[in-house]
Amino acid sequence: MTSTLAPWKDWGVTDRVWNFSAGPATLPAHVLETARDQMLSFDGAGMSVLEMSHRSKWFEDIIGEAEANLRELLAIPPDYRVLFMQGGASLQFSMVSMNLLRPSSSPADYVVSGSWAKKAVAEARREGDVRIAWDGSDGGFSTLPDLRELDVSGDAAYLHVTSNETIQGIEFPPGFEPESGPPLICDASSDFLSRPLPVSRYGMLYAGAQKNAGPAGLTVAILHGDLLERIPDGLHTMLDYRTFSENRSLYNTPPAFAIYVLMLVTRWLRVEVGGLDDMHALNLEKSALLYSVIEESDGFYRGHADPAFRSAMNITWRLPSEELEKRFVDGAKAAGLLELKGHRSVGGCRASIYNAMPIEGVRVLRSFMEDFASRG
Amino acid sequence: MTSTLAPWKDWGVTDRVWNFSAGPATLPAHVLETARDQMLSFDGAGMSVLEMSHRSKWFEDIIGEAEANLRELLAIPPDYRVLFMQGGASLQFSMVSMNLLRPSSSPADYVVSGSWAKKAVAEARREGDVRIAWDGSDGGFSTLPDLRELDVSGDAAYLHVTSNETIQGIEFPPGFEPESGPPLICDASSDFLSRPLPVSRYGMLYAGAQKNAGPAGLTVAILHGDLLERIPDGLHTMLDYRTFSENRSLYNTPPAFAIYVLMLVTRWLRVEVGGLDDMHALNLEKSALLYSVIEESDGFYRGHADPAFRSAMNITWRLPSEELEKRFVDGAKAAGLLELKGHRSVGGCRASIYNAMPIEGVRVLRSFMEDFASRG
Repeated sequence: MTSTLAPWKDWGVTDRVWNFSAGPATLPAHVLETARDQMLSFDGAGMSVLEMSHRSKWFEDIIGEAEANLRELLAIPPDYRVLFMQGGASLQFSMVSMNLLRPSSSPADYVVSGSWAKKAVAEARREGDVRIAWDGSDGGFSTLPDLRELDVSGDAAYLHVTSNETIQGIEFPPGFEPESGPPLICDASSDFLSRPLPVSRYGMLYAGAQKNAGPAGLTVAILHGDLLERIPDGLHTMLDYRTFSENRSLYNTPPAFAIYVLMLVTRWLRVEVGGLDDMHALNLEKSALLYSVIEESDGFYRGHADPAFRSAMNITWRLPSEELEKRFVDGAKAAGLLELKGHRSVGGCRASIYNAMPIEGVRVLRSFMEDFASRG
Repeated sequence: MTSTLAPWKDWGVTDRVWNFSAGPATLPAHVLETARDQMLSFDGAGMSVLEMSHRSKWFEDIIGEAEANLRELLAIPPDYRVLFMQGGASLQFSMVSMNLLRPSSSPADYVVSGSWAKKAVAEARREGDVRIAWDGSDGGFSTLPDLRELDVSGDAAYLHVTSNETIQGIEFPPGFEPESGPPLICDASSDFLSRPLPVSRYGMLYAGAQKNAGPAGLTVAILHGDLLERIPDGLHTMLDYRTFSENRSLYNTPPAFAIYVLMLVTRWLRVEVGGLDDMHALNLEKSALLYSVIEESDGFYRGHADPAFRSAMNITWRLPSEELEKRFVDGAKAAGLLELKGHRSVGGCRASIYNAMPIEGVRVLRSFMEDFASRG
């Protein structure tokens, strides 16, 4: 299949595959090349970023550019803080509730949109009252609500949503954020940086980096400075957002190499892609290539998501039988198309096509799907 | 100074410096070379470890070898678990007390040996009673106690120690662990893997990886299975050691690339160094080169540590004036010897010479110190 691996063959690498993993996920070629070329010495520093003091001038530049790139890409207003943390969205499920629900006399509203939202609720319940504003479990998490039509109390501690459910492949459409109501807190792990966002409509956004933003082991949060005022005293230092805000994410040693890769990825988005409008357009084009082959398959492929809430990041579908699904996944793997098996909790097939998946890879998958259906 | 950079010049890299950073810190040359060569494709996988699903067979092999290498190097008994976490020692200060002090009706004993131990105490006090078993602050944290002579209650929740204080440059000598008493919990961040340890004398050991074991963003813990029985219900999922133990550190996405680098570093220790006895002997030889030049300087250099508790990892000393200290650090930097300034909280000079600092680098520093003293 080397003939399908065009983006890599110029790099002297002949065995690159098309990696549709849901995360960690494929990264831009230029980012990997830069990381490779700087592995023994970063930009004249005489040492690798893996070895570099987080108090050094070089690392100050790296984390500074990482934040500046994010601010530019998302047009983050100055009254929002950008925090670099660890522990993934799973630890944020806890930190959000410790910092913002524990001190509240009102419940927090949660939209239960899929597997990840359910986990967020479970942690929040340890810290205070949780109200389920909407629950999509009866529909197998195939659709999403209009947030403006939910019965959410204006004095709720916050409204928590998951902008994209990685496992089910559903995503809120652009502009889904209400203009008013309690602070909107969003787990944006799997569509962060895939499209522009009206940051000013959020109280807080957070994302594990390992889908669109960089490698595993780094969590980014963007939060309005006013929310810091609510945080109760007595939290453990590493679980208090003020620790990260007041120390510019350098209270203790941060995941420095992961921040460096995020800096390279966001530089690629700014300079090579040209920003989030262009990235969004390309992501819609990529996902349409797969949704259309599903739609045109006369029911051979059955998409999981309600068309109004189809994810541009994670495309999920079933085949007529589990046996055919296994043949599909195995055949794709033999053709250099990897990680197409659906999450073990839901089965079926899933193609994760984050920002860094080239459209060429999506076209190869589309052709494989067409061939498989015609042979099916 | 390229003539002093022998280990690197064969690699086509001419600008490598000698990096004496306290952490993140210098890594073995072969580890960096392997990470570089596998950056676009890991071992036939067709993708970078940065992009790889943590549920993939390749990553199973990586985390499996990482644990196996640690078990072999430290002769970890089978009733101890090896956990890979995030958040550094700073988050462990909290997790230790949440998991092991919160459920206890007895206080925990803490040895306050330096800057890091003080931070551990501050977090533990949020969870229960802390008894200070020993406090070295009056002596400027220049010495350490004999743990066997401390008045520690047998029914204490645990005894917490810091085996090496990175900032002050003091370290407990080999064999310092009591044979009996409450479970010994040790922050071993800055001398982990620098010497053999009698793991069976510990209840738990933990270490941020970014000194001897790998990059920042990864924390290793080794704990006795019996301690898991004590953990109270109701802890947040990501703050409960059972989550990591029961899911082999794969409950959520781990810091995969950092685990990969730790796997390479521990492979280097096993295969190229030959194990921790040999590593320890080399570390003693390296540190003796610097302590002897301090001792033989007629008081020009004044070591901070009580000679009985000198660290083999972090060598700390003063010069006759702050002005001379600044000239020393600046002159060393110009000669390609970086990060020799002491921690901002204590001043002076510090050379961190972890496992991966070649003895050649220590010899270059020793020569510079001799020259500077003779010119001083």
